Amino acid sequence: MKEKLFVIKIGGNVVDDSTTQAAFLNAFAGIAGKKLLVHGGGKIATRIGEQMGIAAQYQDGRRITDAATIDLVTMVYGGLINKQLVVALQAFGCNALGLTGADGNILPAAKRPVIETDYGFVGDMVQEAMQPELLVQLLETGITPVLAPLTHDGHGQLLNTNADTIASAIAIALSAYYTVSLVYCFEKKGVLQDINDEESVVPLITPAIDAAMRREGSLFAGMLPKLDNAFAALTAGVQHVIIGSADDLAVNCSVEKKGTLIQL
Amino acid sequence: MKEKLFVIKIGGNVVDDSTTQAAFLNAFAGIAGKKLLVHGGGKIATRIGEQMGIAAQYQDGRRITDAATIDLVTMVYGGLINKQLVVALQAFGCNALGLTGADGNILPAAKRPVIETDYGFVGDMVQEAMQPELLVQLLETGITPVLAPLTHDGHGQLLNTNADTIASAIAIALSAYYTVSLVYCFEKKGVLQDINDEESVVPLITPAIDAAMRREGSLFAGMLPKLDNAFAALTAGVQHVIIGSADDLAVNCSVEKKGTLIQL
Repeated sequence: MKEKLFVIKIGGNVVDDSTTQAAFLNAFAGIAGKKLLVHGGGKIATRIGEQMGIAAQYQDGRRITDAATIDLVTMVYGGLINKQLVVALQAFGCNALGLTGADGNILPAAKRPVIETDYGFVGDMVQEAMQPELLVQLLETGITPVLAPLTHDGHGQLLNTNADTIASAIAIALSAYYTVSLVYCFEKKGVLQDINDEESVVPLITPAIDAAMRREGSLFAGMLPKLDNAFAALTAGVQHVIIGSADDLAVNCSVEKKGTLIQL
Repeated sequence: MKEKLFVIKIGGNVVDDSTTQAAFLNAFAGIAGKKLLVHGGGKIATRIGEQMGIAAQYQDGRRITDAATIDLVTMVYGGLINKQLVVALQAFGCNALGLTGADGNILPAAKRPVIETDYGFVGDMVQEAMQPELLVQLLETGITPVLAPLTHDGHGQLLNTNADTIASAIAIALSAYYTVSLVYCFEKKGVLQDINDEESVVPLITPAIDAAMRREGSLFAGMLPKLDNAFAALTAGVQHVIIGSADDLAVNCSVEKKGTLIQL
């Protein structure tokens, strides 16, 4: 039987607040066994960009990564946030090691082609080109990799890539070696039955439950792509996907969960 | 017989100029066998600090690392410069992986005690606490580590540490595993006999030659601490120290050198 591995993704809201972050990292460091962290950090990048006079640019609600912005996120994601997480985890006794997708060529990607919109230096992961051996080697020596949401094109260009996508791609690649639980920490306690009731967490979603909820229209529209991604990861070999609050990380990585468990 | 390893340090002047940097990285990628890069980057940090309204503070000519500055250098050294070097080396076919001293707890350090001056978040390396096993493991799997000049105190604080010192400490620690050549790339072609003659490179400095040159007063004062550090590294197990220009990296890593070879 394969050993367990938790691939855990946190968003900018956790990274942004030092109290929330410390509590989360303490819980993360306390998870027994192998684990890997993927982080976002958009709000901090926007704030530091403003200090540097780099305005965030959007088209159709999606951020455009121009040359100044890729340097900005390289600094903020790959430097400030990544290293602050690593140094804090080290203090909690977790032997963390921070990486971008360029480091060790862990996350090869392709610059998104310009069709209607030029998103700039944005990378789409190349799942079949991923070489997860280095991550496995690090995990096997007791290292906890901490991944920033940056990939590269192999020709010298760093690329901005969605952290949810990176977490999913890594979970899939590592499911050849481990029994992987993919945990998305976000601002709600889980997938909610009623978007206005924070306590209405749906405890379990299977393909049948998902189909029924979509028929009833009881899923918040924003959850649909997350669930699509979750089922894609499960189909590709990930054992569980868990969606829940960063505050509930410890319990969500145990048998009894407060968040939403998604499985086939 | 131990395998050869080159530990190469480049300063801000190489990192700062994209043409110089590309030529250097091409030469670096071309060095056969095991190698490791340590980089500085002070000028870029100063420039980005100015954009962010963080003024460089000095006392007695030495930079003070306050809270804003440690965040700044974490972004610039650990993020921007480190990842730009990694992604460029990847494009040259060198499987680089960027690290700070917090990553994998590679470089434990102690915050410099306040005696007359409070240097702020500056770290002094703890040589005997270094655990070079992770670097060895990475080198043995064909990875080229790229080190930013940041250490940590083990209690959650990143610290700013001189890149020359880091290169020397790593060279010493790895000399238990490899025959190490420590190469300092700087703005001159080597140690000069006559500071006004760029071509007056002293090809070889041994302890006897060093003593003779100091007696004659023919060494530029700025070279004295570099030579002290070089002899300390040699005494601690490093085989060669080479001081030369970044432009001459390839030849300085071969048998015939244009720079200064320092050996016992």
